[in-house]
Amino acid sequence: MDTEQRVKLGSKAAAAFLGIGSEVKDRALGAIARRIDESRAEIESANAADMAAAERSALPSPLLKRLSFGGAKIDEALRGIEALIKLPDPCGRFLEARLLDEGLVLRRVSCPIGLIATIFESRPDALVQMASLAAKSGNAIVLKGGSEARETNRVLSAIIARAGEAAGLPSDWLVALETREEIGNLLRLDAYVDLVIPRGSKEFVARIQATSRIPVLGHSDGVCHVYIHKDADPNMASAIAIDSKTQYPAACNAAEVLLIHKDYAEKGLPPLLSALAEAGVRLDICPRCETLLLQETERADEANQPRAQAARTLPAYSIKRDEDWAVEYLDTRMAVKIVDSLEDAIDHINQYGSGHTDAIVSASGQAAAGFMAGVDSSSVYHNASTRFADGYRYGLGAEVGISTGKLHARGPMGLQGLLSYKWLLEGSGQIVADYASGKRSFSHKDLPLDGEGR
Amino acid sequence: MDTEQRVKLGSKAAAAFLGIGSEVKDRALGAIARRIDESRAEIESANAADMAAAERSALPSPLLKRLSFGGAKIDEALRGIEALIKLPDPCGRFLEARLLDEGLVLRRVSCPIGLIATIFESRPDALVQMASLAAKSGNAIVLKGGSEARETNRVLSAIIARAGEAAGLPSDWLVALETREEIGNLLRLDAYVDLVIPRGSKEFVARIQATSRIPVLGHSDGVCHVYIHKDADPNMASAIAIDSKTQYPAACNAAEVLLIHKDYAEKGLPPLLSALAEAGVRLDICPRCETLLLQETERADEANQPRAQAARTLPAYSIKRDEDWAVEYLDTRMAVKIVDSLEDAIDHINQYGSGHTDAIVSASGQAAAGFMAGVDSSSVYHNASTRFADGYRYGLGAEVGISTGKLHARGPMGLQGLLSYKWLLEGSGQIVADYASGKRSFSHKDLPLDGEGR
Repeated sequence: MDTEQRVKLGSKAAAAFLGIGSEVKDRALGAIARRIDESRAEIESANAADMAAAERSALPSPLLKRLSFGGAKIDEALRGIEALIKLPDPCGRFLEARLLDEGLVLRRVSCPIGLIATIFESRPDALVQMASLAAKSGNAIVLKGGSEARETNRVLSAIIARAGEAAGLPSDWLVALETREEIGNLLRLDAYVDLVIPRGSKEFVARIQATSRIPVLGHSDGVCHVYIHKDADPNMASAIAIDSKTQYPAACNAAEVLLIHKDYAEKGLPPLLSALAEAGVRLDICPRCETLLLQETERADEANQPRAQAARTLPAYSIKRDEDWAVEYLDTRMAVKIVDSLEDAIDHINQYGSGHTDAIVSASGQAAAGFMAGVDSSSVYHNASTRFADGYRYGLGAEVGISTGKLHARGPMGLQGLLSYKWLLEGSGQIVADYASGKRSFSHKDLPLDGEGR
Repeated sequence: MDTEQRVKLGSKAAAAFLGIGSEVKDRALGAIARRIDESRAEIESANAADMAAAERSALPSPLLKRLSFGGAKIDEALRGIEALIKLPDPCGRFLEARLLDEGLVLRRVSCPIGLIATIFESRPDALVQMASLAAKSGNAIVLKGGSEARETNRVLSAIIARAGEAAGLPSDWLVALETREEIGNLLRLDAYVDLVIPRGSKEFVARIQATSRIPVLGHSDGVCHVYIHKDADPNMASAIAIDSKTQYPAACNAAEVLLIHKDYAEKGLPPLLSALAEAGVRLDICPRCETLLLQETERADEANQPRAQAARTLPAYSIKRDEDWAVEYLDTRMAVKIVDSLEDAIDHINQYGSGHTDAIVSASGQAAAGFMAGVDSSSVYHNASTRFADGYRYGLGAEVGISTGKLHARGPMGLQGLLSYKWLLEGSGQIVADYASGKRSFSHKDLPLDGEGR
């Protein structure tokens, strides 16, 4: 069967999924976990083949690490499935309920989106996670993993698909694609696929966003900022700047640019930059920053302090002369810029940021409120590290991804990102003619959201 | 200025809008209503020019009716704005709140989407409505009305834009486009425009959906169904079928196809179809329907009733032999098909429907529950006319449109369709390193959603 035929079957499975209840979905997740557990030897042998091929083709060691799947990683994947089983069914929840008139009740109820395609690089654990999230949320799924993990993914997707079907999920609820060519075909199938969720490098996601007519949820860039307001506590400022930059520099929620209010910089620049440098951060500073640092050296001269001592307190840096502030180093390197005001900081972030996560450090609730309202990003923080932007840290139960788009889901997405809703109207024979003629009229009384509605 | 420059200014206005509070938005709406009221003469004279040109070019009379704008229509537009002012600010509402740890509070808060483009045919009242909905929801807006209404739209958009700016809305919050060529340019500007909402004929919406990379919210087709289950009450069945078809046949939520369970058809087909025919509906029936109708005639013969009497109880019809059930007559014409089971009805609707609105008539709560879960449409009804699918009838306050997509907003959209959300994290210096090292841990305690958060 070609890609289109297989994806079309997946779309039929999505419709069949609508009739399947919570018990069947949870039973299927249990069966999937059991079958994975029973098939460890088969999975590990497939993974060994992938690892051997990857070593032969000299895959860099961080990628090798992500590719390996066995033992503890399988344990973790199984714990993830068990945790999902314990979550309440995200479908069939009342989101809104209104009495339109006597005996005419309108309810807005959560439901699956339909057929979701996920495309990701290497990690086989992502395959297990996305497939089980799909089963829990009642969506059919198309999975395309990285080609380095082909053998592992093939074994895993066959086990998961079959175990799910045997436990009552619709046939073809999981469609596994293997080749790069199939991705191209998939991205053209907007008639069948409701949503694409790509997970991988920024170039990878950007390419998919640029290619497909299917809605894409995800993020490519992570140009995050920490802004130090004039009244920031110096210890908090350096702790948050250092954590935002260095706690995991390759993450999308790591800060790339440090903005500093001129009044803060006037006194606090040298110690703040020194603290960053001591934490191993290479600094690309704006010319205004350098002027301030040099003034500091002069002050030391005037105060007749040994020049060497002043220099010791100054960090190493390079000067950033260009105006390209949409930098994403994904490394222990940070751009630093002095701004004249809170408004300038907000404007800078809205112009150069990627709408991911941005933080202000300030003692003033009013400045923070202005920042949080004015910055147009999916996550905006006051006195906290940008590294908190993550589904687990947000308490979402499971993380489907992080979206920097403003429609549907924004920021870290839990299972909610895989859900739509529909309107259910329960009547007793009402017709619109009676309301148009004035014989009856709407009362529109909001109802409490108790109980479950499927 | 060319389209791109003007739309870019609109996108800057969207960022500036984030800093503007509820009072300013409501004050601006008040100023807009006052200026429209004071400018009635100017508006009506522009509209007279449009009407004269339209009459010269022999515009059909329903379109002329939609084009006219003055007197009572202005009153109604002003009442719409007054009603919007009274609504609470839809932005800054807490949607979720969670204590992540002591002194670390996460809130999900509603906020504007950004720059929204609306494109619509003729009606100048739609321009007033969409501009005021944008102001209330804090979105900048690009407006392109029908070319027949050019003079009216030009006057209205200038009045609204200026009155809003004078009252404190950002410069360029309303960008008015006039030519068809500009639409093409606009639809390419996905770097600046966050969302397109087209309102107009099905071909018009479908063309925009097919053209743009910008997300589109709306609906093109409205292939709605009424399904009569085997246990349906005959009076309710015909009342709902007639209302769904005839109450306003040109509406997208009018039913186009009547599905009838074979057991119901066995006894109830002739009176049901006769009732529809008497209500003026032309019927395109499936061959199975005809067989049943002919059997009825034979029964009349056997019972020795005058054949003419039996024939009188039978409706006029034509036979629908093709399998194209995705019909949208938008007229007093209806396709009729007999199905073997509830499951067949659901499958038929999911295959041929447009995901708009579909209804079951049944005395059984269990059958209705199966139908409402299994039908993949934005609105699914039990014992009510499909014509209820409408923002005002749903009690949404204002209707932005109806979406048949499954992402973001689905079905009738109120102001919620113009809103996104963002995550606000209020900390006291927390860094992720402390949680990674185990020094601190997350408590993840949901908080009550009281108060407002901007």
